[in-house]
Amino acid sequence: MMKALVILVVLASLSSVVSLVPSWAGSQATEQGEENLPEELHGILARQQIAWNQGDIRQFMDAYWNDPALTFSSGGKTTRGWQATLDRYRTKYPDRATMGTLRFEAIESQQLDNNSALTLGNWHLDRDKPARGNFSLVWKKFDGAWRIVHDHSSLLAE
Amino acid sequence: MMKALVILVVLASLSSVVSLVPSWAGSQATEQGEENLPEELHGILARQQIAWNQGDIRQFMDAYWNDPALTFSSGGKTTRGWQATLDRYRTKYPDRATMGTLRFEAIESQQLDNNSALTLGNWHLDRDKPARGNFSLVWKKFDGAWRIVHDHSSLLAE
Repeated sequence: MMKALVILVVLASLSSVVSLVPSWAGSQATEQGEENLPEELHGILARQQIAWNQGDIRQFMDAYWNDPALTFSSGGKTTRGWQATLDRYRTKYPDRATMGTLRFEAIESQQLDNNSALTLGNWHLDRDKPARGNFSLVWKKFDGAWRIVHDHSSLLAE
Repeated sequence: MMKALVILVVLASLSSVVSLVPSWAGSQATEQGEENLPEELHGILARQQIAWNQGDIRQFMDAYWNDPALTFSSGGKTTRGWQATLDRYRTKYPDRATMGTLRFEAIESQQLDNNSALTLGNWHLDRDKPARGNFSLVWKKFDGAWRIVHDHSSLLAE
């Protein structure tokens, strides 16, 4: 019950920063765009944020395509595969202190085609040594379920 | 004539590092995949590399979607629009010395859907102070022409 409430609150707070860039898909969007796509993707990201802030990196990883072909790029390097991406997160964020509190901001989603989409946004880690940057997520729909197939995340160069 | 020869040589050298990741699109690839898509995208990148190494940033920009909705992310920031992206390149690389010699490596392209694709690769700038990193390119096909609609490039954190 508490968990459901937290999800609702996070979804509500996310919805205020969420927008669909209308100029993107052009006239094709009317033919094949899913009206509720941004809400659907941003709901997944809201659940991802909750999982992170509960210290549950394994559940955080649910948003990613569970496949050896998942790719995660950051800092000039590319990690390949769902398991290697999970391992990277666990190595980079070994405890609650380094994980901090995750906030996503300025999230925008655009449908690329029937079964593909792109999300841009900013990430913030509130902790002793705060960190922030931006990310690009490429999604594909597998049997009706949207999953991140590629993530490119950058740390803000101050 | 000389220019055509240079293009051929670059295309030939690129083809040796180019690969299509087969596990990506799964069974959908057989239905809607374009057999020559990697060659087509990598040909555009080869021409982009040539333009850069001729000091022609304007021509380099031909690969990008000429639209205010083009997005270019790097170092935690996102530049919006084709013109702003061109301006960013011109500011960051004001002369031939800073532009150096551009090399793309380990380029992989994957069709996401009928009219969208994703390319990952590494970039190298050979110059006095060399730089390298990786990039993710999201492509869309407009009236038969593939253009980069989003670029997320990272500098290698050494």
